[in-house]
Amino acid sequence: MIDLRPVGYVIGLLVLALGVTMIPSFLVDLAEGRGHRFVLLESAFITMAFGALLALACANAVQEGLTLQQTFILTTAVWVVLPLFGALPFMLGETDARFVDAFFEAISGMTTTGSTVFSGLDTMPKGLLLWRGTLQWLGGIGIIVVAMVFLPELRVGGMQIFRAEAFDTMGKILPRASAIAAQISVIYLGLTMVCGLCYLVLGMSPFDATVHSLTTISTGGFSNYDASFGTFSGAPEYVASVFMILAALPFVRYVQLLNGNSRAIWQDTQVRGFLLVIFTLTAVTTLVLTSIFPHHWEDAVREGLFNITSIISGTGYASVDYMEWGPFLITMFFFIGLIGGCAGSTACSIKIFRYQLLLASLKVQIRQIYAPSGVFLPRYDGRPISEDVINSVVAYFVMFIVSLGVLTLALSLTGLDLVTSVSGAATALANIGPGLGDEIGPSGNFQGLNDVAKWLLCFAMLAGRLELLAVYTLFTARFWRA
Amino acid sequence: MIDLRPVGYVIGLLVLALGVTMIPSFLVDLAEGRGHRFVLLESAFITMAFGALLALACANAVQEGLTLQQTFILTTAVWVVLPLFGALPFMLGETDARFVDAFFEAISGMTTTGSTVFSGLDTMPKGLLLWRGTLQWLGGIGIIVVAMVFLPELRVGGMQIFRAEAFDTMGKILPRASAIAAQISVIYLGLTMVCGLCYLVLGMSPFDATVHSLTTISTGGFSNYDASFGTFSGAPEYVASVFMILAALPFVRYVQLLNGNSRAIWQDTQVRGFLLVIFTLTAVTTLVLTSIFPHHWEDAVREGLFNITSIISGTGYASVDYMEWGPFLITMFFFIGLIGGCAGSTACSIKIFRYQLLLASLKVQIRQIYAPSGVFLPRYDGRPISEDVINSVVAYFVMFIVSLGVLTLALSLTGLDLVTSVSGAATALANIGPGLGDEIGPSGNFQGLNDVAKWLLCFAMLAGRLELLAVYTLFTARFWRA
Ligand SMILES: [K+]
Ligand SMILES: [K+]
Repeated sequence: MIDLRPVGYVIGLLVLALGVTMIPSFLVDLAEGRGHRFVLLESAFITMAFGALLALACANAVQEGLTLQQTFILTTAVWVVLPLFGALPFMLGETDARFVDAFFEAISGMTTTGSTVFSGLDTMPKGLLLWRGTLQWLGGIGIIVVAMVFLPELRVGGMQIFRAEAFDTMGKILPRASAIAAQISVIYLGLTMVCGLCYLVLGMSPFDATVHSLTTISTGGFSNYDASFGTFSGAPEYVASVFMILAALPFVRYVQLLNGNSRAIWQDTQVRGFLLVIFTLTAVTTLVLTSIFPHHWEDAVREGLFNITSIISGTGYASVDYMEWGPFLITMFFFIGLIGGCAGSTACSIKIFRYQLLLASLKVQIRQIYAPSGVFLPRYDGRPISEDVINSVVAYFVMFIVSLGVLTLALSLTGLDLVTSVSGAATALANIGPGLGDEIGPSGNFQGLNDVAKWLLCFAMLAGRLELLAVYTLFTARFWRA
Repeated sequence: MIDLRPVGYVIGLLVLALGVTMIPSFLVDLAEGRGHRFVLLESAFITMAFGALLALACANAVQEGLTLQQTFILTTAVWVVLPLFGALPFMLGETDARFVDAFFEAISGMTTTGSTVFSGLDTMPKGLLLWRGTLQWLGGIGIIVVAMVFLPELRVGGMQIFRAEAFDTMGKILPRASAIAAQISVIYLGLTMVCGLCYLVLGMSPFDATVHSLTTISTGGFSNYDASFGTFSGAPEYVASVFMILAALPFVRYVQLLNGNSRAIWQDTQVRGFLLVIFTLTAVTTLVLTSIFPHHWEDAVREGLFNITSIISGTGYASVDYMEWGPFLITMFFFIGLIGGCAGSTACSIKIFRYQLLLASLKVQIRQIYAPSGVFLPRYDGRPISEDVINSVVAYFVMFIVSLGVLTLALSLTGLDLVTSVSGAATALANIGPGLGDEIGPSGNFQGLNDVAKWLLCFAMLAGRLELLAVYTLFTARFWRA
């Protein structure tokens, strides 16, 4: 029997903290003064009370460290329990949401997916808008920590290659993981503030600048407007592009940068690959868009850059309805969503390093065809990669494709058409935000889907965010027997 | 410099043989007597003359066996050169096709894909209809030989696991590969005749029975009617289902059956997996179809069984327009097309054994998560599988997915919509036949596509039929250097 109390203790503390983060949203509501004043405070009280009680109830079983099983359970449980409380303001507030919608919005926030079930954002109480941004921002920093500390330990999806690396090279500079986590939090906060300041300078209101900086750095993509980032067409799109890219780079490199190693970030194979892919895709998109914006090449460059970085980083802001950009770009956008950013960032999806590892393995495969008796080792970042890592990456790919297939089928079974099903499945698993088609595309939202589809997508967002295997493992009998 | 003459010699002989197989179609035209009499004879002469000349020109360089490189080139060249001549009747005959259309039809035939650019099949000269069937029938037996003799030797896509097996176990009974090939040809012919006889008994005309038996056993799917197999609704659908399944089983097992080992076929992991998948999918489809055919459960069973076996075996006959069966079945049909039949049969696509190998590898991966220090070996058919085979299978999967993605993008660039692009890419790579959507779906055809799209699909049919890597290898500089 697995002792769940140490897990409960940690979750209790996190729920307590989540309650505290509702306070700023409460204050914004208070300042706006339109009869929505106490919703966030109520939610904060309920959340904090539950968190404190859970932590107290489990306090007597606190142990030194967690077992492998407890770590698995904790990782998934955090991303299920916190959204339960994050959903409260949407149920109690002006949105008056049903549980399924409120939970969808909250888990879409905490997983930094950014698919929304709400329309009429432009007139939503500001407290709720800030709360949406807060959920994404917390989810963003949360996933960086999970990706750095937990996933490598769990050996999920090839993340183990970042175990030794992150902590070995860091070990010389910083003594403990918690110190890195603290530094990363400072960097995360710093980036958010600089981003917000830039938005402010370019003419966004302080409130819009704040919320959009929260959802940019978390690559979350919630916006305060139904038109998403289309509201801020122009210079803000360039700023957003830069910060979406920065948010999709491995944060551990920023720590190294702060500690004087200015070359670490450029020498990272992931970073080089990621930037090269963005550059290439943006160039292609811009080229195609010049036929759509024939008299405004600047529009083509800007819309190309913005929408490519938005999709590849998994942010999911939309500045135009790219469903009108013709079949090639629509199709390309679908595949770009499956690329994703760097490991150890807030970006989601399959991620660039997995493609690089797979490519390295494939190269070896092809050499093997010519020299059947030769022994070749795939290399990454100049070092040989163990069979174990490659297998783990392959398992991730297989799981991703199978999940995409099963989820598409399940969604179509609820009556959604093929494009909505497959793009909905992809956008949820890859935590991007918008899908394709009229309903869930960049100009639509997830409001009109049936409840079963919404629950399926909630599960997909959760599984996708935690690199699939960390969640699926919980569904094997072997896990609970072990 | 690679000596291409030995390759040319073999191709010359095969082209010569192809010319001979045009004679029956000529005789049918002669018997029908509608001014189309000499088209096939002309084509036969041109083809035989070219084949004989090529063989003679290369005869002085004939060697004992082929090198690895020559084998690669031969495998691909056969499937490019033969369709060039197979296209002649469509250009010279009543169809008066342009080169791109004639070549598309011929390579679609020889790869047993069965996508057609012709409409008005119902009134097409019988010689041409028989020729279409002949192309598929030849392609079917051709691919069995390639899959048994060449691909395992080339170590492509995990096919090497069938190398030792097929020839070791056979070695005890039959002395040489050519003897197996002869036996397989007899079985192939026998199955075709039994199938045709069954069709005849159920009321098809002798001509229809002949052509449809040719395209059933080759899992090709060309029909003599625009309505495809919908023309023969009823009992023939059951017969077709049985023979499509038989055609998708490994033919080497039939040889063993003939040689007295009656259990070999049931003990084959592939066969068990394949039959189980068909049973499950047919049950699901039938269940869903009962809501479409509420008063005729027999329709649901029959249409379910027929269309599932048609897609999973890669035959691609359509008996109804399943685009009207709702999003769930449409989506499911897309994925079923990616399953495929057994290796060493006429069936195409990814094939069941690769999923089984991948699953075995995945199981090991999951065990590894619980016991990081343990060493587990994936097993197939009770025997441990070498890392080499798994890597090769994974390389195949990656290549397939990447090919699907790139081809979808390329097709969308020619202006096709998303569903047409992705389903067209899949149906060509997996050699199935019909795609999804109104244009290339079960009730449409490939006539209206632009030329670029047609050439892209020709390449995809070829690459897909030869398990991708056998073709892609030719495009690497290393291949020509080696
Ligand atoms: K997002
Ligand atoms: K076919």
